[in-house]
Amino acid sequence: MSFPRAPISFTLVHYPIRNKVGEDIATAVTNLDIHDGSRLAATYGMEHYFLVTPIEEQRSLVCRIRDHWITGPGTKRNPQRQEGMKRVEHANSVEDVSEFLTKKHNVRPLLVGTSAKATGEQAVTYEGLRQHLAEKDQPILLLFGTGWGLSPSLHNTIDLFLPPIWGPTDYNHLSVRAAMAITLDRLLGRHGS
Amino acid sequence: MSFPRAPISFTLVHYPIRNKVGEDIATAVTNLDIHDGSRLAATYGMEHYFLVTPIEEQRSLVCRIRDHWITGPGTKRNPQRQEGMKRVEHANSVEDVSEFLTKKHNVRPLLVGTSAKATGEQAVTYEGLRQHLAEKDQPILLLFGTGWGLSPSLHNTIDLFLPPIWGPTDYNHLSVRAAMAITLDRLLGRHGS
Repeated sequence: MSFPRAPISFTLVHYPIRNKVGEDIATAVTNLDIHDGSRLAATYGMEHYFLVTPIEEQRSLVCRIRDHWITGPGTKRNPQRQEGMKRVEHANSVEDVSEFLTKKHNVRPLLVGTSAKATGEQAVTYEGLRQHLAEKDQPILLLFGTGWGLSPSLHNTIDLFLPPIWGPTDYNHLSVRAAMAITLDRLLGRHGS
Repeated sequence: MSFPRAPISFTLVHYPIRNKVGEDIATAVTNLDIHDGSRLAATYGMEHYFLVTPIEEQRSLVCRIRDHWITGPGTKRNPQRQEGMKRVEHANSVEDVSEFLTKKHNVRPLLVGTSAKATGEQAVTYEGLRQHLAEKDQPILLLFGTGWGLSPSLHNTIDLFLPPIWGPTDYNHLSVRAAMAITLDRLLGRHGS
């Protein structure tokens, strides 16, 4: 039986994002986030890796970097990047991503948020979501926030929240690149091998 | 009982590293690797995070960035970075790191390598190393390679190798930032919470 049963995508959200004093801001797309995320996407079999920003120039930047590695000079320099970059998409908003996936699969995806702080309600464990992935067909969209995390204004559109990532300490200010890597590995990694 | 029992450090090696045609090279230290690694170090309770390079200018760069966040302007801008940056060290070689830890703890650390390719001999599973961490006092030094991975010339000094990281696909070209995050989480993460 194949694992996971349903297609999974993930989104790095650049708006709406909290800044350190709790206001909504837009953060900047960075080259390395595109690369690290695309390599995670290929490793963990993600259908798509969406970079969400309402700033058109930044969506163009995503296209230029992606195309460099899919059809441009990057294909020769490092062919392995292609497999990840093929999964990279951009979108104006989380709502647009959700609509895109709904049209593609004829069913609304389950939106699963992540946060460095416990959200209380709508909680699902990693084991609970792993079980969903093994048993159910509903597509999943995982959401990761840049800056100081996903804006509370997104919470109404999110179905479930994964708990914060903890090591053996009480510090959990991971980079979003690390948080994406760890979350995908907890959900989809082959830990036995 | 505390977990882990023994102090653990990790090292991001910039020399000797394989390039894509298998030659030994030195790679460049990058700012984001210092930041992402230092935040992992604080989250997973690492004693030290060593950046290894024989290039003196690059070791100075590590110092300047670290000091900016520990005693410089960064302490006000983002106080949480301090906790991670305090663990950042630099060294000329893996041997120097091993000697430093040997002197500090009066016992040679167990050197554990990582690789995107199975190394065959000297293999230890994640579960096996987790058990070591729970039961034994010998300090651990985890080694991560930049570029195309740790040079085979280091293999003689490495005691054990962790297996490559796999998701549900046959692609495993992760960024070293992702590999560090996933490895530390597999070994030390609180997965039940």
